[in-house]
Amino acid sequence: MGPAMKTPRITGVLAPVVTPFRADRAPDAERFVRHCQWLLEHGCAGLAVFGTNSEANSMSVAEKADLLDALIAAGVPAAKLMPGTGACALPDSIALTRKAVSLGCAGVLMLPPFYYKGVSDEGLYRNFAEVIERVGDARLQLYLYHIPPVSGVPITLGLIERLLKDYPQALAGAKDSSGDWSNTKAMLDAFGKSGFDVFPGSEVFLLDGLRAGGKGCITATGNINPGAIDGVYRNWQSKDADALQAGITATRKIVQSVPMIPALKAAIAHYADDPEWKRLRPPLVELSAAEEKKLLDGLAADGFAMPGIEAVACPVH
Amino acid sequence: MGPAMKTPRITGVLAPVVTPFRADRAPDAERFVRHCQWLLEHGCAGLAVFGTNSEANSMSVAEKADLLDALIAAGVPAAKLMPGTGACALPDSIALTRKAVSLGCAGVLMLPPFYYKGVSDEGLYRNFAEVIERVGDARLQLYLYHIPPVSGVPITLGLIERLLKDYPQALAGAKDSSGDWSNTKAMLDAFGKSGFDVFPGSEVFLLDGLRAGGKGCITATGNINPGAIDGVYRNWQSKDADALQAGITATRKIVQSVPMIPALKAAIAHYADDPEWKRLRPPLVELSAAEEKKLLDGLAADGFAMPGIEAVACPVH
Repeated sequence: MGPAMKTPRITGVLAPVVTPFRADRAPDAERFVRHCQWLLEHGCAGLAVFGTNSEANSMSVAEKADLLDALIAAGVPAAKLMPGTGACALPDSIALTRKAVSLGCAGVLMLPPFYYKGVSDEGLYRNFAEVIERVGDARLQLYLYHIPPVSGVPITLGLIERLLKDYPQALAGAKDSSGDWSNTKAMLDAFGKSGFDVFPGSEVFLLDGLRAGGKGCITATGNINPGAIDGVYRNWQSKDADALQAGITATRKIVQSVPMIPALKAAIAHYADDPEWKRLRPPLVELSAAEEKKLLDGLAADGFAMPGIEAVACPVH
Repeated sequence: MGPAMKTPRITGVLAPVVTPFRADRAPDAERFVRHCQWLLEHGCAGLAVFGTNSEANSMSVAEKADLLDALIAAGVPAAKLMPGTGACALPDSIALTRKAVSLGCAGVLMLPPFYYKGVSDEGLYRNFAEVIERVGDARLQLYLYHIPPVSGVPITLGLIERLLKDYPQALAGAKDSSGDWSNTKAMLDAFGKSGFDVFPGSEVFLLDGLRAGGKGCITATGNINPGAIDGVYRNWQSKDADALQAGITATRKIVQSVPMIPALKAAIAHYADDPEWKRLRPPLVELSAAEEKKLLDGLAADGFAMPGIEAVACPVH
């Protein structure tokens, strides 16, 4: 066997795919697969399954491995997948990363271990280094996931620099969900020319990111608005780019006027006429009736649509 | 078979037992069992294995289940065990809680799901309620673990009230590691007379807690100083109580003058003459040489000792 072939890098719009749950709160593989297929057909270049918006940390490693298997079995290309695989426990991170790499996923998006706060870069370096070494597969493309407002554990530029130096083949890039453009810009300026692909964590920064060397975005609203967001990605050098950006930013603001994760699920439930989609796992809860009305009224006034989305005719669980 | 018998509640000093790791960073069951035995022989009334100081969230559910089995196999009484079983993912919390209850553990100490921040009490209520209902075992004694400086997700008095009302048989108490005595006092005042056992998360508040109706403490330094802390517990109504409390508070301050978890391991390594104990799992790191010197010099000046602690003669891993 020759050297392992890396899957080409994903660029463009990725959705951190929301995870549907059945009445017994088990992951609903059928709806999940169907939504992934819809996303790839409507503008997503890739699927960052098992992200924050996927309620990934509310699922066990085994549940996530089963969902990956279901995607592959349904014909979703592994080359489109960038699953989240970072957990608090190193063996969990290693197990899910190994699974993703063995399936041929384009990459993995890794949270730092997020229970302890105020940890050192040395400790975080050891975590990522140990995952890379124990997975021990040249196909691994690791994207670091910086989302301090939720994880409480930042990925510093110094940590990236050290990992890039020691693992230039494995370190593929980062998602920056800090919400702080100056941090994204600093990442791009420092590493964007070293084959380190930076994705802002919101389409609000998509155009700014592309102009500064970014590779697309990985964004919650990619779950419902992938076509328009992809429109900015495809036309970022056109004279219409700023107007297109203003459009997707406006839609984003409507969605994030209520809690984001239940909002995405409520929108899918509404546009697919499939109320099963509204369910969340604790500790998250559904939108209140007032929040749902605010969201749906706002989207309607914006002329929002989800072309081709439809209910999944599932057996009653 | 008659109704399931509950194990009597633990009162007194509990240690969140530090977890030794082997050179390959796998949990070292032999050293773990030996330290648990030493703790029970030297002042601990119970063992809150798998706490924050245990690096519990850096271990997989399977690793923790195996360590519980190792304790039971070695003859450590389940009636002395209050393992931490709360995880971000509900299935993980359910699996480890079920395991603990099936072994006859005196209780479980449960973190809230801690990835998402700013979650509602409704969402946290659903999490704990679902664990209680899915475990579905009348022997379950659930202690809530309030440690907002680390978890980022507080356990409010309103949440406790609602859970106590709906699950009075399962809700046994709480560990308050907020470090805020006014919060511990408010918990004691609100629920201390309802059969809800409150344990401050530090021996600094042991005497104050006992005087206000607390049941002991669950404290990091219980790992190395259980005898003296138990001395305060046993003599809290004596005239010497305040002097005894001042002594354990002074020792605590020496230990927490450097990072706590590596400090506990460094102290055991030193007093047992067993350097294997120093190892941590990422993202935590060992003390620097300067920190270790500061700790050990401070303890020596304090006349500190760990009577009967000794190295474990292990096969080379």
